[in-house]
Parts: sequence; structure tokens; C-alpha cells
Amino acid sequence: MSTPLMNQLGIVKRNIERADRDASERLGKLGSATVHEAMGRVGLLKPCMRPIWPGAQVGGTAVTVLLHPGDNWMLHVAAEQIQPGDVVVAALTAECTDGFFGDLLATSFMARGAKALVIDAGVRDVRVLKEMGFPVWSRAISAKGCIKSTLGSVNIPVICAGALVNPGDVIVADDDGVVVVPSLDAARVAEVAERREALEEEKRAKLASGVLGLDMYRMREPLAQAGLRYID
Amino acid sequence: MSTPLMNQLGIVKRNIERADRDASERLGKLGSATVHEAMGRVGLLKPCMRPIWPGAQVGGTAVTVLLHPGDNWMLHVAAEQIQPGDVVVAALTAECTDGFFGDLLATSFMARGAKALVIDAGVRDVRVLKEMGFPVWSRAISAKGCIKSTLGSVNIPVICAGALVNPGDVIVADDDGVVVVPSLDAARVAEVAERREALEEEKRAKLASGVLGLDMYRMREPLAQAGLRYID
Amino acid sequence: MSTPLMNQLGIVKRNIERADRDASERLGKLGSATVHEAMGRVGLLKPCMRPIWPGAQVGGTAVTVLLHPGDNWMLHVAAEQIQPGDVVVAALTAECTDGFFGDLLATSFMARGAKALVIDAGVRDVRVLKEMGFPVWSRAISAKGCIKSTLGSVNIPVICAGALVNPGDVIVADDDGVVVVPSLDAARVAEVAERREALEEEKRAKLASGVLGLDMYRMREPLAQAGLRYID
Amino acid sequence: MSTPLMNQLGIVKRNIERADRDASERLGKLGSATVHEAMGRVGLLKPCMRPIWPGAQVGGTAVTVLLHPGDNWMLHVAAEQIQPGDVVVAALTAECTDGFFGDLLATSFMARGAKALVIDAGVRDVRVLKEMGFPVWSRAISAKGCIKSTLGSVNIPVICAGALVNPGDVIVADDDGVVVVPSLDAARVAEVAERREALEEEKRAKLASGVLGLDMYRMREPLAQAGLRYID
Amino acid sequence: MSTPLMNQLGIVKRNIERADRDASERLGKLGSATVHEAMGRVGLLKPCMRPIWPGAQVGGTAVTVLLHPGDNWMLHVAAEQIQPGDVVVAALTAECTDGFFGDLLATSFMARGAKALVIDAGVRDVRVLKEMGFPVWSRAISAKGCIKSTLGSVNIPVICAGALVNPGDVIVADDDGVVVVPSLDAARVAEVAERREALEEEKRAKLASGVLGLDMYRMREPLAQAGLRYID
Amino acid sequence: MSTPLMNQLGIVKRNIERADRDASERLGKLGSATVHEAMGRVGLLKPCMRPIWPGAQVGGTAVTVLLHPGDNWMLHVAAEQIQPGDVVVAALTAECTDGFFGDLLATSFMARGAKALVIDAGVRDVRVLKEMGFPVWSRAISAKGCIKSTLGSVNIPVICAGALVNPGDVIVADDDGVVVVPSLDAARVAEVAERREALEEEKRAKLASGVLGLDMYRMREPLAQAGLRYID
Repeated sequence: MSTPLMNQLGIVKRNIERADRDASERLGKLGSATVHEAMGRVGLLKPCMRPIWPGAQVGGTAVTVLLHPGDNWMLHVAAEQIQPGDVVVAALTAECTDGFFGDLLATSFMARGAKALVIDAGVRDVRVLKEMGFPVWSRAISAKGCIKSTLGSVNIPVICAGALVNPGDVIVADDDGVVVVPSLDAARVAEVAERREALEEEKRAKLASGVLGLDMYRMREPLAQAGLRYID
Repeated sequence: MSTPLMNQLGIVKRNIERADRDASERLGKLGSATVHEAMGRVGLLKPCMRPIWPGAQVGGTAVTVLLHPGDNWMLHVAAEQIQPGDVVVAALTAECTDGFFGDLLATSFMARGAKALVIDAGVRDVRVLKEMGFPVWSRAISAKGCIKSTLGSVNIPVICAGALVNPGDVIVADDDGVVVVPSLDAARVAEVAERREALEEEKRAKLASGVLGLDMYRMREPLAQAGLRYID
Repeated sequence: MSTPLMNQLGIVKRNIERADRDASERLGKLGSATVHEAMGRVGLLKPCMRPIWPGAQVGGTAVTVLLHPGDNWMLHVAAEQIQPGDVVVAALTAECTDGFFGDLLATSFMARGAKALVIDAGVRDVRVLKEMGFPVWSRAISAKGCIKSTLGSVNIPVICAGALVNPGDVIVADDDGVVVVPSLDAARVAEVAERREALEEEKRAKLASGVLGLDMYRMREPLAQAGLRYID
Repeated sequence: MSTPLMNQLGIVKRNIERADRDASERLGKLGSATVHEAMGRVGLLKPCMRPIWPGAQVGGTAVTVLLHPGDNWMLHVAAEQIQPGDVVVAALTAECTDGFFGDLLATSFMARGAKALVIDAGVRDVRVLKEMGFPVWSRAISAKGCIKSTLGSVNIPVICAGALVNPGDVIVADDDGVVVVPSLDAARVAEVAERREALEEEKRAKLASGVLGLDMYRMREPLAQAGLRYID
Repeated sequence: MSTPLMNQLGIVKRNIERADRDASERLGKLGSATVHEAMGRVGLLKPCMRPIWPGAQVGGTAVTVLLHPGDNWMLHVAAEQIQPGDVVVAALTAECTDGFFGDLLATSFMARGAKALVIDAGVRDVRVLKEMGFPVWSRAISAKGCIKSTLGSVNIPVICAGALVNPGDVIVADDDGVVVVPSLDAARVAEVAERREALEEEKRAKLASGVLGLDMYRMREPLAQAGLRYID
Repeated sequence: MSTPLMNQLGIVKRNIERADRDASERLGKLGSATVHEAMGRVGLLKPCMRPIWPGAQVGGTAVTVLLHPGDNWMLHVAAEQIQPGDVVVAALTAECTDGFFGDLLATSFMARGAKALVIDAGVRDVRVLKEMGFPVWSRAISAKGCIKSTLGSVNIPVICAGALVNPGDVIVADDDGVVVVPSLDAARVAEVAERREALEEEKRAKLASGVLGLDMYRMREPLAQAGLRYID
């Protein structure tokens, strides 16, 4: 059954069902690559989404925002809906690289307990944001500010950088990119990902000691069957 | 409530609720620009989606496919689910410009009654497709073919060129691009769009006679209030 | 002396000095490649500016418009300033691919005598525009319409696709792209370009008869001096 | 053993070993998609290489040219090396969208018997080139002309749009793109491709009659084994 | 009145009117985002212009250079025109990512008192430039060097990354991008920007204390009037 | 004579002739810009190839890999062919931004003595790779992992980011980009580059003392001859 979208501009949903906090924290610690793998390789935002400063790694629950190009009014509306542990996920109705977010909004978001912003557009004040330690993943950096004149929505399902994000979903972001985990799947994915991570530790030690992946993963036979030929 | 997506690879949904056929036809005749306007300016696929030959205009109901880069296996699976009047909408799990679709698949799709293909990737045999009169909207054209080895899904919600498409939604496509109309909204949007279209006829006649939009739309006063100054 | 730009939003300049009509027509007939060459290889808009339908070739005088992303209000203001033989040149304050122009505005522009539109953004209704025979050079095609809420300006100097266009300058556009000729230079450039064109006719005949450019342009000696070596 | 490339600027190789003419013609008739498939999916130039007018399809032997950005001197040198049935393949030492080739050079190339140009840069006079019936595949169209001042080379191995082209290789180009077939492989690839083409005729007839690819290709069992589930 | 551009290649203007030094310094301290806002949101270079190392922030007066692709001869000519406090702004006649500038030119520029380089092309030796503390904003980084053979100009109006820069204008650049302020406007913009900045301090404190932007900016009423609905 | 490429999938060449180790080390110390210059400005990979962390500079001998989009199986095969001092160079048969390489493969590569990876695709685990000190030059960063199912080849000639790389060639990479030096040319290029570097030291000192490049390079006369005019 398809979702009616026509009436979804100008809406703020106040009560959203957030993913389990514990699962969200655990997913954040695992990182985007491990979580994406555990998800069965779905849920990744496009790789044009890059951190504005390196080294941050977060897991949090999505407060979603739908914005119009050049207009950041709804980010102020979204601020009120933030709860500690949330990550704001901002999507746009059309491509735009303007700077929708800077140090003032970051101050407000941090005061509300936001852990990060993921925005399919540009941001500014990036040096200050780094000094404040507020992580942002964005498509662009731009000094161009925004107006505040058109309604979007808060906490509706949005498509951000090619991925569907529902309010309350878990967002995992680090230097490798941004992954969304549906809230109902969060606990299960965390478990799968942690098992995966544990196995990687062992593999790492073996590979460091000089064992080849060819042997560790028993690839020699399937490679030969696929027809791989060694020549001199 | 968020949608669990983890189990959605390897699924074919056979019975989908298609939008009203009549609404779908009417929307197709109105074209993407008028329908997008009537929708409140949502539902447009990214403008990188271009027709492979000019002049086609269609309205149809979506059979959706989720494909992996370089692998078109699921397009064969999708063929069986096509009913007359459908438009196949193919999304990818990652960006790819390979040629997923050519004249053989088009022959099969046409035999099943498909009206068009919308694909967030590449296609090939474009000269033959044009001769066959089968319309395609794609992101690329490429002679590179695909393998058939990984499962995707058919008739699950997909994100195609930045827009959410549910199976059964109406797809409207022409030289201006591709718009998706949720199936429940189809009749209402068709009505809004037709009223809009009727009004445009009158406006066109007035503008052709030399009346200015400034006067016809009564813009002079709001422009003056906004501070517009005429200088010589 | 630098131009103050700060007060230039919200301005419509009514009386502009248009380039000589005769020079404008002659330049149009010569085409963008010949004119660009005669200009000393300056004045070309970026090659992302493409005709929405092939085969049109125009020369006209610029009515300039500065637009904000997603807002086409000033195109209606510009319509009133159009005189027969003008080409409307629309620049944007930030990148945007929305469809700023469609068949209604084209109807109005044609009624005023406009010869074409050059716009550093998107347009829509392209099939109808082609049927109407109204030529457009744009960066994109998009069904997404615009709002009418923010002031820009008309007939101020603008930067369109990387080139400075002053109101009244000559715009030459064809399938190879768009060139701007400063109005004071129009007559002189037309003369240079026509001499160039005349010479090309002779060259074309020689080359068609099998004479090599190497001989016709006497390149063999400079090539040898530059060190070109022929090997077998 | 690696190829020394350092001395390869300023060289024109006169005697090159061209692929078999018959194989070259047969490959041209098969088209880029079929030939690329028969090659084992290698040899395709990047899909940014597009025909400047639709509908042309050629097979010919490569005369290669290495050009510097903004400098088309070596195209004149290359003209002398063209033999009937050749396709000129022009590579660049760095990215450039300037118009390196127009109607004068095309006149000369046609007089020498060239079948087409493939160039990893821009061309101009595209309307005239279409009228002349001279096919070009290029990355861009631009009115900007070139200077003639720096040596490149003719008939050395070049990398054009991501593919290695040796002088004498077969170039197959149509609306789907451009493929290079090494000269020694030409006859064998032509044979493989023709067998492939013959099989496609049968398949086309079956699919047109309503037989599904699922059955014709016997995909149902492997799909089930891969875990495909049908739901209602 | 349009500017004749035809004779502007091969010119070096020695005496240019530089913006007020004090205003230039004050604007540099304010940063690109604040200055762009104070300008009324004009004057921003395209966001593809990025610092080659993070953290630099400068304000200076423009010495402009017009370069041809692959040719950096005029940067040496420009060096002589540099006065302490200048920022060199280099524009190109066509797109190019070559490395036009490295540590030798930087040594020379620094010896002349230049504060930075803004170039719509590529640069190289970026690790050394960072060690030297010489800031550069560029579109690309490339090891490819340039030739010295074609005349451009110094201290003529140029279009750099989509913005018109006149010699003597103020250039403000930081991690958010690059803004140009016309020299006549410099003092006024500095004043507006400083007032703006002062207000931001207060706002920052309020927001940090938990006050919402919704209340601080009194947005609740206009949002309600625009039709915003809160749902649970 | 053209190279047959058809049989080159599914091959691993074990014994390759590596460039002289000493020349490789010396080239690495000189850096990509100096080496590229000494090569006569050929051999540079496209500037989209960027280091995933700044400051690394390497010279090593190429072990080449040809990969299919989304499939990193052959990187495991390549690991076994690595000798101390090698740089793995991975090319793709079609564009792809997936993350082909992460900390596990890096552990294995480092255990084998690899100095770096150059890959015309994406990588992941970039924060860990930086902590490990393993340098990578790539086109993209992406959390999306790969499958292991299709044969490519190891130690065949590949085209990586537009440059031909033969196994055993020297790879020089730093913050300015990546250059390939044919193995037979390595010693000679190193010599040319070192002489060039020595001369630069002197020039740097002169320029730092305030001598202008105009005088040091004796450019004033050729500039005047080319027609440069100084105006006030």
C-alpha cells in the first residue's frame, strides 16, 4: 500500500518511536562499514556525504527534516523536537549546496542533546563547528546562508542522499560514510554486527602474522574452479 | 513506524494494488510538469533521468525492481509481473552506468504490455529501442552488459533517482522528466492537475495576445511592496 | 574602478543601450564558433549550456535577469522589458536545476518579440517549446516549477555560465554553444568574423579536393622545427 | 616488460598494421553492445563518449592521435596518415572540453576516406558535421577553438576515455558507445559476435510471442536455489 | 554601457585602486559567511573552491590574473604587481585542473607580501605550501605543471569561479569558501558585518542556555500563519 | 603491434620484472610533481585520485590488479604476489565507488611489505588505515563492501584513472597525486628529476630574497615580444 505524500508539507510529528537507545549506542561503536555489512549491504547514504572534519563516529536516533532549497526555517522547528541522543537528518526537495547550518544552530542543537547532523546539502562555519566538536556529514560546504520563508516538515519519512530515513531510525556515521538502520531492526543488526566484529579480530591477528586471505578464507579451490590461471 | 528493510532482498511480491487505470491514463496525458505542480512539488525523480529518445509521454502503474550494480537478473523476474499499462521502475543498491536493458528485454516487456522503463542506471540498443517505440528514461547509455547472479527484489518500495516509488504508484514521464504519484493520491492529483491545465489554456491565449504576466497575475503591487525599483 | 554590486537586487533598468541591430543579425548568421574565434577566444559561456532542441541559431541583444534558485518571479518582470530582437539571458545567484521557464512564459516572450532564452538553470515543457519553435539554451531540463517570492534584478550586468553579460550585448547561440559579444565591439567583431568566414569557404574547397592542411597552412616546416619525427 | 613512453611525444608512425578490413566491417555491423559482449566485456570507452548526432554506426581501423589540451595541431598531422576505412581516435594528455575539430578538418578527413572521429574532448560545427554525415563521438561540444603550437604524436598507443587503443585496432561505435577490439582479435571476435547475434534473433521471436526469459533461459531453478521467494 | 573585452589580453595594469586596508583586515576577521550575509548574499565564489589546507582565514585586496589552460606565465607577471596585503585571484579562459602554482611561486608571492592565492584551477606542492603557511583556495590539486607561452592579463576584471572580481576588491576566504567585496563597498560591508557579528554573540549565549530559535526569533506565529501543524 | 586483451581475465602473472629498487626509492623522495615534470609531463593519473589522509609520500613498484565493480576477490589473490617495496595498483572494468579495501586487507598487505594502495574506486575503514599508517590513494571513500565472485587478473597491464600501468612500473604518490614511471625509464627519470630538484633549491633562495621570476627566468623580453603592454 503506497504512502500518501501530498499532505506531508507543513507537518511536525511530535511523538516518534525512537529505536532502542542501547542498540543505537552499540551500532555507533561498530561503525558504518560493519553495520552496513550486517544489514546485508543496504541502507548506505550516497558516498558524496562526507564528514566536515575527520575522526567523529556517532550512533543516534533520527529526527528527520524536509527542507526546500535555500530555506532552513524548518531546522529551527526541528530543534525543539530533538531529544538527547538524536541525530538530525535533513533532506531536500531539490539539489542545493547552500550553507543551511552554522555555529548558531549547532549551539542550539547541542543544547538540546543532538549528537550530529546529516544533511543532503551544504553547511558553514565549519572551523567553529570543529572547535565545538559538533559532527556534521554533508554534501557540500558553502558560506551562502538561507532564508526562512517556506514550510517543510519534521519527523516525516525522508529520502536523504538516496536512502529512506524514517524518524526514530538509527543513524551510524563515521569517516566511511552514513548508514541508516530501521528502528525495528536495530537490536538484531547490532547483534549480527558485533558477532561479525568479534570474528574480524581473530582474522586481523592471523593476517598480521602473514597468513594469506587466500588460505584463511579457503579461496584457492573456488578460484581454481572459476578458472584462475597462474603464469610465470 | 519504520519499515524493516533487512529481509527485503530476494522477494517478489505478486499481488500489488495498482493505482486506478483511468487516473493513470489521465495523469500521463497531463505530463510531468503539470502533475508535479499539482502534487505540491514533490515526487520528481532527479533531473539526471532523461529519455533515450525525445517525444514519448506515458502514464502507467509501477512494477518496481531493486537491482545490484552490473546485474540485471531481476529484470527477467520482473517481466513476469508486468500487466498491461505498467511502467517498470528499476532502482539500484549503488550507482552504476552499465547497460541493464536492451532490445531483447524490451521485446519481452512489450509482449507483457509494459508501457515504459524508468531505470536509475544505463541501457543499451537505444537505436533499436527507438525503432521499436519503447520509451526508456535512464541516467546513462552504455554498451556494457550485465551478469545474472545476485538476487534483488520485485515489487518492494524502492528509491529511484532520489524518489520513493511504491509498487502500484503512477509514473508520469515525458521530455521534462519523471514524476511518481502515490496510488491513493492518483485520482485527486489528476483532478487538480486537469483544473490547472484548463486554466493554463486561457492564460496562454491572453499571453499570446500580448497581455503581460505582470498584469494577468497582478504582480505589480506585490513587486512594488517587495521593493522593486524601476530606473532609467 | 570596481562596480558596487550591493544595491543591485530589486532593480529594473528600463533604458538600455542595445548593440547595433544589423551587427547582431550578422553575428547570429556567423554562428558561435566563428564569432568566438573572431573575438580572440573570449566570451564563451561554459559548454554545459546546451540547446533544448537541435538546429536553432540566433543572434540578438541581451535583456539580462538575475534570479534566485527556485524563484522565477523576475522572468515575468523581464518580459515587459523585451523588445523585438532581444535574447533573454538569465543568471542565478546559486546553482539550481529547477525548471524556471515553460510554454506560458515562452508564449509571452514570443509575443514581445524575444528570439531566445539563455538560462543558467533548468527549463520545462521542452516538447512544446520545440513545437513553438522557441529556442532555449540551458544547463538542465526539469519538470520542477518555481515560486514567485524574491526580488532579483533586470538589466544589470550578470555572470551567466561563467561569462559576464551586460544588458544590450550581442548573444550568439547555436548547437555549438553560446557566445557574448560586448555591444561596443559588435560591429567590429562582425566584420572580422565575416572576413574569416569568407576565407573558410576557399579552404573548404581545397581540403575537399584532397589538399592537406599540412600543405595549405604551411605547417610542415614549423612541425619539423618543433622536432616532429616520422618513423616507419 | 613495460613500454617506455618518455620519448613518445613528437612522433608520427607511418606504417601501422591495420586490422583485417573484412573483420572491421563485420564488427561495425554488429554494433558496440554485441561486440563488447563477445569481447568478454572489456574494451568499452567510458559512457561519457556520446555521438554528436544519433543513428550513425561504424567499424573502422584506428589512426591514433595524442593531443595537448587546447591544441589541435596534430589532427592536421594525423590527416595525412588516414587511409580509407580508418577511424581517427584522439586522446588528450589532460582533460579538456575545447572544440578540437570542426567542419574544415572533417572535410579533410572525409577527403582522405576517414569513417569517423572518436575524441576524448570537445568538437564544434556540430550542425554542419551532421549535414555532412560525418560521425563523431566526443565527450563535449564547444565553440572554443584550438591553437596549433605543441607537438603530440600520431599512431602511438593512446588511452582514450579510459581504454587503451593501439593504432590499427578496430573501433566499433554507435548510439550505445564506442568499443575497441585489438587488431589480432578482430576476426575471432567478429565470429563470436556473429554467432551471438544469430542466437539473439531466435530469442527475440520467442520473447515477442510471450515466452518469458525466466523459462527461455531456464532461470527458475537457479533463482529458487538462490533463495528467491514469491509472496502474495 | 558594456565593457569592451576584446583588447584585454596582453595587458598589465600597474596602478590599481585598492580597497581600504583597514576595511580589508576587518572583513578578513569576520569570515566569509558573515561577510556574504552582510553583502545581501551576493559575491560568493562557487563552493567548488576549497582551501588546500584547513584553518586559514584571510582578508586582502585582489590582484587579478587571467590565465589560459595549462599556461601559468602570467602568474610570474602578476608577482611584480603584488603589494603587501594583496590576495592574487586567478581566473581561466576555460576549465582546467592543472597545477598552476607550487612552492617556488609561493616563495616569490610571500616575498612580495601576498596573503593568499585564489585560483579557479589546480595547484601542487600542497604539503610544502601548508608547511610554508601559504593559504590557497583552488578547484583542484594536480601534480601536472604548466608551460609559459601565451599572454593573459593582470589587473583586469575577471570572472573567477562564477564571481566578478575587479582589481582592488576585497577577498575574504576561510574554510567556508571565498567572497568578493567590491572595493567601494568594503567599509560599509565591514560595518554591517560587524554589527551582525556582535548580535550573534548574544544569540549564541541564549541558544546555549537552551532558549529555542523558535522563541528567540519569534517564529512561532509566522509558522502557524504559514500553516504549520503539529501532530502526535 | 596491438596487444591481445581477450584472454587476460583470470590470469595471475607471478614473475614480473620490477623497476630498480634504488631508482624507485629516489623517485619516491622527489615527489609526484617533480617526477611528472621530469617525465615530460606524461604519466599522471587523473586528479580525482586523492590520498585518504594527508602527508604520505611513497615510491614503489607496481603490482597491478584488474577488478570488476563491487567485487574485490582479486585483491586477496594480489596479496600473495606482493613483495616488500611494492605498491598495489587496482583498476576497474567500469566505474564504481564501493569500498574495495579496508583494515583487514591492509593488515595483510602490510604483512607482505606493501607500501601503499592506489585504487580507481573506493575504500573504507579510513580512520583505522590512517592509524595504521597505510597510505591509500583512491577516487572515493565508501562504507559499502564487496563480494568475491568474479575473476579479474593480477599483474597484467591496466588502465588506472586514465594512465597505463604495467606491472613493475614505479608508482610515485603524494598529496599532489599519483604518477607512473615505466620501469625501463626509472633510473633515467630519477636522474633528470634530481637535477631539476637541485636547481629548484637555488631558485627558491633567490625568489625568497625578493628576486622576481620575471628577472630570474629572463621573461621580460619574450613577454614584450609576445606583445605584453603595461598600462597605468
